[in-house]
Amino acid sequence: MALIVQKFGGTSVADIARIRNVADRVIRTYDQGKNNVVVVLSAMSGVTDKLIALAHEATENPDPRELDVLLATGEQTTAAILTMMLKDRGYPSQSLLGHQTEMVTDCEYGNARILEIGTHTITRLLDEKKIVVVAGFQGVDIKGNITTLGRGGSDTSAVAIAAVLNADVCEIYTDVDGVYTADPNVCPKARKLKSVSYDEMLNMASLGAKVLQIRSVGFAKKYNIPVHVRSSFSEEEGTMVVNEDSAMEQLVVSGVTQDLNQAQITLKKVPDQPGIAAKIFSPIAEAGIVVDMIIQNTRSTGETDLTFTVPTPNFKQAMEIEKKVAESIGAREVTGDTNIAKVSVIGVGMKNHAGVASLMFNALARENINVILITTSEIRISCAIEKKYAELAVRVLHTAFGLDREE
Amino acid sequence: MALIVQKFGGTSVADIARIRNVADRVIRTYDQGKNNVVVVLSAMSGVTDKLIALAHEATENPDPRELDVLLATGEQTTAAILTMMLKDRGYPSQSLLGHQTEMVTDCEYGNARILEIGTHTITRLLDEKKIVVVAGFQGVDIKGNITTLGRGGSDTSAVAIAAVLNADVCEIYTDVDGVYTADPNVCPKARKLKSVSYDEMLNMASLGAKVLQIRSVGFAKKYNIPVHVRSSFSEEEGTMVVNEDSAMEQLVVSGVTQDLNQAQITLKKVPDQPGIAAKIFSPIAEAGIVVDMIIQNTRSTGETDLTFTVPTPNFKQAMEIEKKVAESIGAREVTGDTNIAKVSVIGVGMKNHAGVASLMFNALARENINVILITTSEIRISCAIEKKYAELAVRVLHTAFGLDREE
Repeated sequence: MALIVQKFGGTSVADIARIRNVADRVIRTYDQGKNNVVVVLSAMSGVTDKLIALAHEATENPDPRELDVLLATGEQTTAAILTMMLKDRGYPSQSLLGHQTEMVTDCEYGNARILEIGTHTITRLLDEKKIVVVAGFQGVDIKGNITTLGRGGSDTSAVAIAAVLNADVCEIYTDVDGVYTADPNVCPKARKLKSVSYDEMLNMASLGAKVLQIRSVGFAKKYNIPVHVRSSFSEEEGTMVVNEDSAMEQLVVSGVTQDLNQAQITLKKVPDQPGIAAKIFSPIAEAGIVVDMIIQNTRSTGETDLTFTVPTPNFKQAMEIEKKVAESIGAREVTGDTNIAKVSVIGVGMKNHAGVASLMFNALARENINVILITTSEIRISCAIEKKYAELAVRVLHTAFGLDREE
Repeated sequence: MALIVQKFGGTSVADIARIRNVADRVIRTYDQGKNNVVVVLSAMSGVTDKLIALAHEATENPDPRELDVLLATGEQTTAAILTMMLKDRGYPSQSLLGHQTEMVTDCEYGNARILEIGTHTITRLLDEKKIVVVAGFQGVDIKGNITTLGRGGSDTSAVAIAAVLNADVCEIYTDVDGVYTADPNVCPKARKLKSVSYDEMLNMASLGAKVLQIRSVGFAKKYNIPVHVRSSFSEEEGTMVVNEDSAMEQLVVSGVTQDLNQAQITLKKVPDQPGIAAKIFSPIAEAGIVVDMIIQNTRSTGETDLTFTVPTPNFKQAMEIEKKVAESIGAREVTGDTNIAKVSVIGVGMKNHAGVASLMFNALARENINVILITTSEIRISCAIEKKYAELAVRVLHTAFGLDREE
């Protein structure tokens, strides 16, 4: 007997027929060895967007508290329907909404963080051998206001519940069948990973975010909950997201990602004085803009060129800020470029392998792809390159690190 | 400054444009003399039926608990949207769901009765000069399960809230502009009543149920809350439902109703013994069937014919029960007739006026309408007649009691 948390995304509960498939799967899991099963559901696909559109039809700027009240109806609907189906087929079951689950969050409407989950109610229902069906995505703040956890928040609901219940596994059912070594649309030879570590998954945001809300991976890592990402439309095993020691594959690099959503800004001929970096980056940080890569080229003249990247949607604002900064610190000029992309190789294996960086640079150089910026972390190396080379770079690196699927 | 509860029905919140009209009206009420306003909303018209259809698509017999979870989303949606609009226009406002309103009910899913309403939250919000928007129709049982109050339950939500807050008035906005002396579709000369007493309203179920859930009238009477039934599509005054002393019109009869939903059953030649009535009616009551009119014709032979009416949907079941009863008590035979209608005249004025019954019988006799059964209460006289005469009888009685609208 195991305790299994199963989360089904919007495409898995898109209509009555698909919810019926979910019921089949839940019942199979419940019957196998009399498992305890907690199901976490998203809204039917498209419903959350429809509700947001309705709110915008009603008002230009929907009030965040009330928007969450509205959005919470989506998961309430699917939770009620699945529970009806389970009971209709003779399986004891009960739905729980955010406040009934005691999913306590902060009061950041639309993007709330989980503070605490009361286990009393769920545990009581499981003791009664009931299948517990939780409305995902929703919580309740300490004052009893309904909150929601942001896009993909049901993943976080599921992993957080798995964590507090100390579940054996959290299964995330979605419309893709696992985590791939690269985006298969970009890299046809990408292959599905049997397992990936939490840290790799966290670093593969641009790949991973499509299958799993990144915030949920942090939870899984913190509480060491194995997460099984798999398709609700097949019986195939998906990808296990687990701790480093449990990862079954011993790859130097587990994935290659691209991020087309970065723009670079350069301040030229900045006086090279102590405290100058703070003057450049503090106003950006205060505006809530996240700086990703930074490079500084010191010249012999005591001046320096400073280049960094920001997300494309923040580019215009960041440029305006830096033009003022440049004036105040006496920098020569500010230039910008949205024509860049970031490609990364990620893998816990690179900790123990020298030469990963040089292998990466050589592979790119062979294709005459110029590296503009470089950043590294313990398990990731990222290069900013010209945007037009992004897809080629992904394929080249995928081959260079031996990730290509065998034909 | 007054405390006003305003309830808007499904047609009044049928779409975004209509909800915008509701916002206009709520704001006008709030601004007039800085009133405290509590708004109670139904779901958009048709939504509850759609949700029920969805549940039936999912399962043959939707689980009552889960059906209530599903249905509650309808009022949650309208409450959130109206509140957004109010806030968008600069009016402080907050929505409250059933559990947030502390609308505590019994656990009769789908038809729950209100046990208690916590006033703490609403009062606090009103003290902050907020417009409180309550999702009608929904409550929560003592264990925290979502319940709903049955068809038209939002009326009861509104009146009950008005009662616990001791509101000055409970306004019920609907798609008709008040309570009429008869159904205008049957009796073209029917006119709108300026006021009607709680007891008259309770007796006018067949008229009143179209504009006001009858259960809500009981609440209004118990707590002496004036209820103003009016149209959300005009500025005209509607009908005040008030206590007898406050009723402005001094009519002998306030309304004429018809009920086509009754069937009669006759047990012939029943031995006239003590306890025989209990033997006949107990099994019917145990089956949950409500007997309305009863008449007993004692014969000189020590036998009696016993006739009574039941709602048409229960007719078949009641006939089967009575056939068994007839056998066991030695009655000659059981006959049934679904071809009857009940017409009633209702008015608190008849308490002080003799001759109402004879006026009624004479009016029907003039048209050769035969009276099959008669029942009376303090403020109502009802006759069962042949169904084909029902509409004619309503018009004749409407004229006879001086209710016809002046042309």
